[in-house]
Amino acid sequence: MNFTVKLKNAISSSGSVLCVGLDPVPEYIPKPLRETFREDDKLILDFCRRIIEATKSCACAFKPNTAFFEALGSKGWAVLEEVSDMVPSNRILIMDAKRGDIGHTAMQYKQAFFERLRADAITLNPLMGMETIDPFMDDPEKAVFVLAMTSNRGASDLLQRRFEGRLSLGEYIAEELAKKKCKSSSHLGLVTGATQTEWIRPVLNAFPEAHLLIPGIGKQGGNIEDLAEILKNHKGLPIINSSRSVIYAGEDSEDWMEKVSIKAAMVKESLSIITKQYV
Amino acid sequence: MNFTVKLKNAISSSGSVLCVGLDPVPEYIPKPLRETFREDDKLILDFCRRIIEATKSCACAFKPNTAFFEALGSKGWAVLEEVSDMVPSNRILIMDAKRGDIGHTAMQYKQAFFERLRADAITLNPLMGMETIDPFMDDPEKAVFVLAMTSNRGASDLLQRRFEGRLSLGEYIAEELAKKKCKSSSHLGLVTGATQTEWIRPVLNAFPEAHLLIPGIGKQGGNIEDLAEILKNHKGLPIINSSRSVIYAGEDSEDWMEKVSIKAAMVKESLSIITKQYV
Repeated sequence: MNFTVKLKNAISSSGSVLCVGLDPVPEYIPKPLRETFREDDKLILDFCRRIIEATKSCACAFKPNTAFFEALGSKGWAVLEEVSDMVPSNRILIMDAKRGDIGHTAMQYKQAFFERLRADAITLNPLMGMETIDPFMDDPEKAVFVLAMTSNRGASDLLQRRFEGRLSLGEYIAEELAKKKCKSSSHLGLVTGATQTEWIRPVLNAFPEAHLLIPGIGKQGGNIEDLAEILKNHKGLPIINSSRSVIYAGEDSEDWMEKVSIKAAMVKESLSIITKQYV
Repeated sequence: MNFTVKLKNAISSSGSVLCVGLDPVPEYIPKPLRETFREDDKLILDFCRRIIEATKSCACAFKPNTAFFEALGSKGWAVLEEVSDMVPSNRILIMDAKRGDIGHTAMQYKQAFFERLRADAITLNPLMGMETIDPFMDDPEKAVFVLAMTSNRGASDLLQRRFEGRLSLGEYIAEELAKKKCKSSSHLGLVTGATQTEWIRPVLNAFPEAHLLIPGIGKQGGNIEDLAEILKNHKGLPIINSSRSVIYAGEDSEDWMEKVSIKAAMVKESLSIITKQYV
């Protein structure tokens, strides 16, 4: 199924643009669960399984951040494989891998993430040039989300600085990606943070058709009303990520899964002013 | 042992600044070996073992590119763990991972590459800001090599363009990294390609103390004389990588390991005008 169609269906059937980020850290996992596993890999696997179960009715997408699995080595990567299989087939699976390398190496990443892990999408880092994107452009069922304007404080170091006459390097990246649009059968999307709307507007104007992966609500504090306003003129679909504020919402309580469900429903509700533009 | 001391010793004992890049692709592995393994993970493990054996007397460092292991999933990552253990303790192990993420995630990468895989060094991508480097700065036994001026054609898309009044974004990255030098107990180094000396010179001038990971000789065609000339004024040590042109030098012949050894010795010899500056 075409990526955009799958994403639209996922937003419709969940009634939500929420993406749940899977960043499992053994020490942060609720104590009741933590105490039942001696091995970290089994612990994070069970945690991710329960998080997906508790939030899937409120989320159109799941986004494992590969770093949190790599931290446990090959056993962690095996968990990532199992978690990928657990994501319901009517939800979008985004691998937050932030890879970026020359074509010969990028082909290997494509095999790892699109073929082996069967992700619908991957996040990519374009610093080494647009050739880092090329190997991912030949599959209409897939999407890439290219780092353009992130929501961290470090965005001011490079991405928010003037570049080639544009207001920001991020805007330039979006423009360059827009030029590739017609040559790509995969969907080309952007990662744009939610926290600093003045930086995001020009990036979206540079590539209005791009679907957006938007981190930075929740713990990072992006404002949903401002975001809704900006998105009104954008043609691509938004996928709005929340990781820690949802998955650790249950803290150490016995009924942590219920609390995670409730938190996901609350975030879904708070995003409804955005979601209603698309369903 | 302090990273710089370990690197100096590795250059002295091998008599070489050569780093052998481990980019194992099952289809490119010599036929005689390929025919003895039915499973790709066992094949690439044995291939890497033999490559290390055949080249260790001519190389100061080994650089597995993680993409080529990830392409085989969790089994590939298990091979990466075994290969890491195979690198002799008097050689430098550089993980070519090109990771770059916010601090909270970067901590996970640090665990994956410095703690679990016990690498001496990692390659990092600074696009999301200098905070991507911070978590790696607290260990005198370790080094980071930050992408500054790569040797691929895509370098002209972003890294070779003017930035903040500098000749290139790469030069600016080197400058920003140099500012962090005093705050870091880990060694801060740069990735600078070998092919385009006019772009590299200002990058090295911006951070003369940085050790350098230099890809781009061999298949990518960098000129060794030009490189030697540039390095004369640089205080940091160079690690010069060759991957495909060494590891696949044996093609499909029965005595492929011998051919790989000979090729490594030839590359070592061709680099001797550089090596002699350091031993």
